Amino acid sequence: MNTPLNPSNLADAINARGFSHAAGFRINAIQPGSAEVSLPRRDDLLQFFGHFHGGVITALADQAAGIAVTSGLPKGRIGVTVEIKVNFLSPASGNELVARAKTLKMSGSIGVATVEVFSKDGASETLCAFCTATMRALDLPAEFR
Amino acid sequence: MNTPLNPSNLADAINARGFSHAAGFRINAIQPGSAEVSLPRRDDLLQFFGHFHGGVITALADQAAGIAVTSGLPKGRIGVTVEIKVNFLSPASGNELVARAKTLKMSGSIGVATVEVFSKDGASETLCAFCTATMRALDLPAEFR
Amino acid sequence: MNTPLNPSNLADAINARGFSHAAGFRINAIQPGSAEVSLPRRDDLLQFFGHFHGGVITALADQAAGIAVTSGLPKGRIGVTVEIKVNFLSPASGNELVARAKTLKMSGSIGVATVEVFSKDGASETLCAFCTATMRALDLPAEFR
Amino acid sequence: MNTPLNPSNLADAINARGFSHAAGFRINAIQPGSAEVSLPRRDDLLQFFGHFHGGVITALADQAAGIAVTSGLPKGRIGVTVEIKVNFLSPASGNELVARAKTLKMSGSIGVATVEVFSKDGASETLCAFCTATMRALDLPAEFR
Repeated sequence: MNTPLNPSNLADAINARGFSHAAGFRINAIQPGSAEVSLPRRDDLLQFFGHFHGGVITALADQAAGIAVTSGLPKGRIGVTVEIKVNFLSPASGNELVARAKTLKMSGSIGVATVEVFSKDGASETLCAFCTATMRALDLPAEFR
Repeated sequence: MNTPLNPSNLADAINARGFSHAAGFRINAIQPGSAEVSLPRRDDLLQFFGHFHGGVITALADQAAGIAVTSGLPKGRIGVTVEIKVNFLSPASGNELVARAKTLKMSGSIGVATVEVFSKDGASETLCAFCTATMRALDLPAEFR
Repeated sequence: MNTPLNPSNLADAINARGFSHAAGFRINAIQPGSAEVSLPRRDDLLQFFGHFHGGVITALADQAAGIAVTSGLPKGRIGVTVEIKVNFLSPASGNELVARAKTLKMSGSIGVATVEVFSKDGASETLCAFCTATMRALDLPAEFR
Repeated sequence: MNTPLNPSNLADAINARGFSHAAGFRINAIQPGSAEVSLPRRDDLLQFFGHFHGGVITALADQAAGIAVTSGLPKGRIGVTVEIKVNFLSPASGNELVARAKTLKMSGSIGVATVEVFSKDGASETLCAFCTATMRALDLPAEFR
């Protein structure tokens, strides 16, 4: 028997598959229009200089943006990424990444979110990346409901 | 004894660590100002709907852009990403991704590259993402030479 | 009596109003999915250093992208800009700007175009900006048909 | 006799030429790392539907970002735009635009700013665009000092 999907179930489902699951993304908080997702450091997530890989930072930001936008949509709808843009501001050299996304605007089926990504070392956080993402709301295909 | 680095050694070194290595990035071609990098499909690289994850597509595009820009720099210099922007154009549902990057412009220490990412199924290729990346040229730190 | 709108009439109409008209945008060519728009130099279009202002370059690129996307849509539809991104590659110090746009992909109501902007001095052209734009197709409001 | 340039003189100088001057940009506030610039509505600044033209919105955002970044630099340095990205969130149909920029990060000679652009109607403000800009710090050429 399937549990009916609510925003948090859908976010959990998004997060429990494929790359998000393999990399170890953790959903810390969800509210309609906002989300926090974190990722502990692991050697297979780094780049040449030993910091988190830009693509991994982008994946985390994308996931947070998708959950933030989706959590503000009616049940049965999901936000998919039209485009994403990330500025890398300082080396992501901490033990953990934390991405905090919020929806700036939903207009028709288009949503725009911003995401701040922090590199965390113990209690200290440094803003390491800033992201904007444009999302499109779709009906969740029947096989995923 | 270390082999002295030439452009291709440096690209190989960039590619042989961390996420690039773990995900299975393959460098197919390098010329000064261009690069092709590919990635076979694997379950742990996908998103919710079973296509390549947007963050993984971005990571591959980023790697290709970095190698394209770096391969046009003098020995001992490396291009690092200032910002990256990706439009997702169609589902990346193929068996392999192929990212083809070229440097549009190097001006002072700033380089701009565009990357076309194709989703490949056998002989058929579909443009699934288009990316621009702004890179900054740095001296390669001594411990990486 | 109004001439019924065809792609070129609509593009002409877009171009004949407001800023486009005041600045002096010229439509050189339109085909379904592509457009060329140019702009002669004038003192009130420049920035601090005496080159074309980045916002003016963006306006021209935006117009070219909008016409390229709109020209590929069914009659009565128009592309409006969701987001635009421009990399400035070299000083736009010529006598004229030429923006060449092409639609990369139309998918549902979302279109993505790239635009190359050249700074022209006599017969010589220099790529001075590269742009991507995401457009959304809308029904043209009745009062504009 | 020239007044020696301080941050506000330089911002004034940037704003007093070319397009900024012709369009009527007004600098409302400058602090190191932030700036507010506004623009009253005028027919020659609009697009097809009678709202502020996207290129004009971008020009205003660009100006605000440039002043925010430049105001945080040592005297004799100026920030020029490497790339700019704008999401258009709602029609800019008000009587005035207000752009508020802040520097997110200065790192070496690269600065990143975000800009919120509001469409203002009397006392009411609507967020109509969100922008990120990457700037490069240059020495101000001698003839502009």
